[in-house]
Amino acid sequence: MGEFELIRQFFQREQAENLPAGVVLGIGDDCALLQMPDGKQMAVSMDTLVADVHFPADAEAEQIGERALRVNLSDLAAMGAEPLWFTLALTLPETDEHWLRGFSRGLFRVAREFNCALVGGDTTSGPLSITLQVMGSVEPAHALRRDGASPGDYVLVTNTLGDGAAALAVLQGELQLNAEHEAYLRDRFYRPQPRLAEAKLLGGLASAALDISDGLIADLGHLCAASDLAAVIDVQELPLSAALQAVDDIDQARRWALSGGDDYELCFTVPPENMADIAMLVAQGKLQAKVIGELMPGAGVICELNGETFELPQPGYQHFR
Amino acid sequence: MGEFELIRQFFQREQAENLPAGVVLGIGDDCALLQMPDGKQMAVSMDTLVADVHFPADAEAEQIGERALRVNLSDLAAMGAEPLWFTLALTLPETDEHWLRGFSRGLFRVAREFNCALVGGDTTSGPLSITLQVMGSVEPAHALRRDGASPGDYVLVTNTLGDGAAALAVLQGELQLNAEHEAYLRDRFYRPQPRLAEAKLLGGLASAALDISDGLIADLGHLCAASDLAAVIDVQELPLSAALQAVDDIDQARRWALSGGDDYELCFTVPPENMADIAMLVAQGKLQAKVIGELMPGAGVICELNGETFELPQPGYQHFR
Repeated sequence: MGEFELIRQFFQREQAENLPAGVVLGIGDDCALLQMPDGKQMAVSMDTLVADVHFPADAEAEQIGERALRVNLSDLAAMGAEPLWFTLALTLPETDEHWLRGFSRGLFRVAREFNCALVGGDTTSGPLSITLQVMGSVEPAHALRRDGASPGDYVLVTNTLGDGAAALAVLQGELQLNAEHEAYLRDRFYRPQPRLAEAKLLGGLASAALDISDGLIADLGHLCAASDLAAVIDVQELPLSAALQAVDDIDQARRWALSGGDDYELCFTVPPENMADIAMLVAQGKLQAKVIGELMPGAGVICELNGETFELPQPGYQHFR
Repeated sequence: MGEFELIRQFFQREQAENLPAGVVLGIGDDCALLQMPDGKQMAVSMDTLVADVHFPADAEAEQIGERALRVNLSDLAAMGAEPLWFTLALTLPETDEHWLRGFSRGLFRVAREFNCALVGGDTTSGPLSITLQVMGSVEPAHALRRDGASPGDYVLVTNTLGDGAAALAVLQGELQLNAEHEAYLRDRFYRPQPRLAEAKLLGGLASAALDISDGLIADLGHLCAASDLAAVIDVQELPLSAALQAVDDIDQARRWALSGGDDYELCFTVPPENMADIAMLVAQGKLQAKVIGELMPGAGVICELNGETFELPQPGYQHFR
């Protein structure tokens, strides 16, 4: 199967007849031609997943395709942007139709769910690796940047933390829980939920935001650095799932929540005057979020438990270490 | 050196103070935020270069960086688009500061030359591979698509063909020419010229266009397929550089020009009524281009020499063959 047949068969089918919103020209020319909605800014983010670095080379292709796009969409959520389009650079050691069928099935399921259209890319031969670029649109005034926070702003996170790291421990046989908890964690790992709906609610209310991919401390550290502030986290307040609460060693669960990474929840800051609106969204069930600390002048992230410094875990995952 | 330090040191410096045109937020947040010029469409194209597939792993890092961006910008030229921004996904086996210094020097030299700003990307650890996505803007009416040609349109190419393949033969020790010709070919290979200025002149005059990366016959075949037409090429008219004309076997030189690939010249079609304008641009020295054939009803690409069918060379390079 040649490159063009591969593209046609696995990646071009879906848009044969009706071009998705804003797509003037899709897959198959030198470039895709895209029309941005008037007055909006474009948000772009790129992620590479390398076999045996970011996922086991023998993982299910469908799960790889699904996870790759979910993780990248999380960056759009972290910017408060609405998904529009994505491109795919796929490097494969060989043309494996079974693998391609699974991968494209997982990829397009997520693309449909979040209304994000594949508009182009490249396929090459080489060691298995996947690069995605997502593009979205955002109202300039509602962009969730990292550098807008002020002293006294509250620090919040969506949903629960630490599930990504606990899931990895389960997958590697280092943690045993009951079947229900283990299934929950596996799903959290392979199907991280980009918090796009939540992010849309936060536009105009949050002063800064990002998504937690490298671990709360590492990522909140980036927000603090960009905003030139320090953060104090109350470890007692970290939101933990039922699965994490079932871990024997509660301090281990907290360390996963603080530095585990792969959670893809939003960490965001809210000025005191906007907290009533946030509380209303939470009370209405539109947003699941919790205050875990606050910002102050200074630098770095401090963790406290019952008024004492909580032993700092390792910093978040860094490539090239 | 961690990932963030690597990005800061080699890729973020250039935009520390002044943000480039349209860049609201550059490297360092979850997404870049970009402002499209009013009324323009965005053209996007993605290319992956894998070590030992698209370049020798031990090639000069500076040449790799330079070539990677030039080749990708050629896709913007082929769409008639003006470069605005690009993103970079860089996968490296290890942090090699010497390599990174050379690579980023080559990359940014081209970025400055063509006024295209790096706005984001990803760095990961794994087998050496480079994915670039370029983004540009184009007047909707001036986009050079593949599917606009009509029977009777002339087929033209810019500059000369076959240099890419001849250069590869020189690099692999399979072709010897005098020092001047060899130096010319090496430069054509490592520093392919994206024909952005030429493409800008063609907006509104050419009926269809693409760039020649896989070889004239293969790429013109794509244009014919997209426009539902056939092309007849007069092999006598293929423009050959002085270096190619110095090759002993003229038929070999012509085969390189027809199917060699890696030329990154534009192949475009022009309706008869626009040929006077094209001729004027050529006469003024603003455009170097030559008529090599014409389009007719049918399918496929036919090559003729002195009224007889020219023996068809192998089809252009395909990955996954």
